[in-house]
Amino acid sequence: MLHLISAADLSHSDAVLILDTAEELAQVGDRSVKKLPTLRGRTVVNLFFEDSTRTRISFEAAAKRLSADVLNFAVKGSSVSKGESLKDTALTLEAMGADGVVIRHNASGAPYRLAEWVRGSVINAGDGTHEHPTQALLDAFTMRRRLGRLADLRVTIVGDVLHSRVARSNVALLHTLGAQVTLVAPPTLLPVAVETWPCEVAYDLDSALPKSDVVMMLRVQRERMQAAYFPSAREYSRRYGLDAERMARLPDDAIVMHPGPMNRGMEIAAEVADSPRSTIVEQVANGVSVRMAVLYLLLGGSEPALGGGER
Amino acid sequence: MLHLISAADLSHSDAVLILDTAEELAQVGDRSVKKLPTLRGRTVVNLFFEDSTRTRISFEAAAKRLSADVLNFAVKGSSVSKGESLKDTALTLEAMGADGVVIRHNASGAPYRLAEWVRGSVINAGDGTHEHPTQALLDAFTMRRRLGRLADLRVTIVGDVLHSRVARSNVALLHTLGAQVTLVAPPTLLPVAVETWPCEVAYDLDSALPKSDVVMMLRVQRERMQAAYFPSAREYSRRYGLDAERMARLPDDAIVMHPGPMNRGMEIAAEVADSPRSTIVEQVANGVSVRMAVLYLLLGGSEPALGGGER
Amino acid sequence: MLHLISAADLSHSDAVLILDTAEELAQVGDRSVKKLPTLRGRTVVNLFFEDSTRTRISFEAAAKRLSADVLNFAVKGSSVSKGESLKDTALTLEAMGADGVVIRHNASGAPYRLAEWVRGSVINAGDGTHEHPTQALLDAFTMRRRLGRLADLRVTIVGDVLHSRVARSNVALLHTLGAQVTLVAPPTLLPVAVETWPCEVAYDLDSALPKSDVVMMLRVQRERMQAAYFPSAREYSRRYGLDAERMARLPDDAIVMHPGPMNRGMEIAAEVADSPRSTIVEQVANGVSVRMAVLYLLLGGSEPALGGGER
Repeated sequence: MLHLISAADLSHSDAVLILDTAEELAQVGDRSVKKLPTLRGRTVVNLFFEDSTRTRISFEAAAKRLSADVLNFAVKGSSVSKGESLKDTALTLEAMGADGVVIRHNASGAPYRLAEWVRGSVINAGDGTHEHPTQALLDAFTMRRRLGRLADLRVTIVGDVLHSRVARSNVALLHTLGAQVTLVAPPTLLPVAVETWPCEVAYDLDSALPKSDVVMMLRVQRERMQAAYFPSAREYSRRYGLDAERMARLPDDAIVMHPGPMNRGMEIAAEVADSPRSTIVEQVANGVSVRMAVLYLLLGGSEPALGGGER
Repeated sequence: MLHLISAADLSHSDAVLILDTAEELAQVGDRSVKKLPTLRGRTVVNLFFEDSTRTRISFEAAAKRLSADVLNFAVKGSSVSKGESLKDTALTLEAMGADGVVIRHNASGAPYRLAEWVRGSVINAGDGTHEHPTQALLDAFTMRRRLGRLADLRVTIVGDVLHSRVARSNVALLHTLGAQVTLVAPPTLLPVAVETWPCEVAYDLDSALPKSDVVMMLRVQRERMQAAYFPSAREYSRRYGLDAERMARLPDDAIVMHPGPMNRGMEIAAEVADSPRSTIVEQVANGVSVRMAVLYLLLGGSEPALGGGER
Repeated sequence: MLHLISAADLSHSDAVLILDTAEELAQVGDRSVKKLPTLRGRTVVNLFFEDSTRTRISFEAAAKRLSADVLNFAVKGSSVSKGESLKDTALTLEAMGADGVVIRHNASGAPYRLAEWVRGSVINAGDGTHEHPTQALLDAFTMRRRLGRLADLRVTIVGDVLHSRVARSNVALLHTLGAQVTLVAPPTLLPVAVETWPCEVAYDLDSALPKSDVVMMLRVQRERMQAAYFPSAREYSRRYGLDAERMARLPDDAIVMHPGPMNRGMEIAAEVADSPRSTIVEQVANGVSVRMAVLYLLLGGSEPALGGGER
């Protein structure tokens, strides 16, 4: 593996290797071993064309825990805003010694183009409405940790699928890993091509919940609430929001997920977000482990991941 | 000590421990020992809801000199601006492995709430008009270094006390450490509750100066100059500004302090700022030492502070 | 050498020392040795009054490859925007332990003033229309690597010389190193004082090209295109842009340079930028090596540059 651009590109064994490596590396967050020298001297550039402090910090924490150097390149105010092309930016970063580029871009497909131009590794941290593969990996990692398996797991993804790169990456990865995915969304918030996706579609949340081992609530993008295809906030919350009453319909062991940041009271009620079923905080912690695994596998060469931790 | 939120929370022995530790760590700024491995593998997050490059950099320098990793989380453009609650931000940072969170927030009290939610240490780097405890600690450290003691020291704090978290933290800490504080301010720039504070109040600067071992000039917040309770800039400077003539009224050994950034020519004349009495540059250097001490004491566990410096 | 403010200040032996040191350090970018401990414990502050992510990241990569700590101080939103003077900012940074300050400022001469106030090293990363010495050094380094020498090299610099600190620094440094520089520009885009510069001036690009070993295209600053002394974009490109047809007039071994970021299609055609003659990507890589050399020579004291790399 050289790049990680799309969850759909991952084979079953690729995906399992990442999850297993993340499991090993998760111990580094523990109080005993705090940092590994694995990527000392490697440079990771965070190239962010969209603001996302959460994702940027998660990658930065992961890289630093492996002793890599991190350079943050936020595009606002950079030469990119002076009209430099993505290609020239890419060549510049590579020439400066970037071993890996973590890119977030508002245009779907930008990471693919980047990967054509650089020899280092490209990691997609979210491109337009296309993909966000490390999010899907951390979600799968969280499900496997909580529920012990992924095969045949029934996962219900709820909300604005149309604009969600999280949904897209999860459907692809969970299918590869043998889970059964059902999307629940208003018809106007489903992509036309959903028929070709390897998943089911349903429109009624209440009847989907009792058949779910996992329910994943997508973030409502408030900036899209004005659009005609979007129901009113109140109507959305009533039909697609997860409150305590609705949560009670889930099987006993089922978990509730959310990629964050949450709109408490909109797609998820506060009491649901804070309930023991919720894995939302674990997802964040697991995100660092999964990103460590991805950085290690792409940049680490032949060295073992756990070669002597520092206390 | 787990958190440092308010100077008022510090006991006499807590405060002395911080100052003594800072004294030990001050040698790390020297040319011989540049860096200590004490906090290697610990992660410090700077969570800044207000711009303050000076304070952020001071904490960052302190953390790096102890070999901690630093993640900068400026709120502008982050998910917080998408409506995420402070609680969710806090849980996210903790899940990413933050051992300590340095928070600056425009709302008084925000660090207290943060401390309820996270297990890591919370360090208040300024909250609203409430407190800025590391500023008070570095001020006390500077006084002790210059004048040899804190007990019975006569400290006069001059200016916009009403909006000053620096004044509030200094009054609390200096009282704990046995100094005698006098506030000098226009009546409209004193808080109503000042009667309950452990200090004196005076209105005439000229008569206060001869009885001062330390005079601390507060920054005039120009953005508040419009408000009705503020005298004109010229009037303010004439009555509450410190110029060379006024400085001559101080006892021979008295020092002049300012938390920075200064408005030269407003609350302090350039010749005063640059005089040998002025400790303004020392305060900045001492700020790094004091913040190293706080980070070490809160995050360092049982390891000795000075366990083998790197050259 | 304590500071690097102007290429004109460099003696022939200073300049050669920097280029030779950069040549040694260039191997650190290789896959085998990734990082040197040379500046461990030293602190480099990037003090940027103008946005320039490229230059800032290049210095940051250079400093980190030598194991220095880096603090980024962007002025927007800092106390400087609250009216703090450059002098107070400088004293603050020094008090925080900055061993070196890399400054970019919109006012020509600002780095000279900075150097009067601090004891640490000042490195000019671009001041107004005055100088950008590390750019000239990386350009000279690139010419020497590609063409084997600098003495008697014929270098043609093309474009908006009037506003170009890159041109100014290159003329000074290349003269010191024995190259022959010719400027080609519209008369309105030449400074009045150009007569006193150690170089030739020409107005016709086509006749200059056959006599050039190096042609360096300057960036057109679009924000200046409105000004009366600027030809229209189309006219500029027709007379001063380098396209494939024009490039064919160059001698066989001649190279094409550009400091970046490029306006493809304006001062340089895409096919020229991507041709084997173009050194544009090498210039970026060489920039890191040259900045490592400068940081090492200014901050490194008596330690050898290559004292045990880390893998």
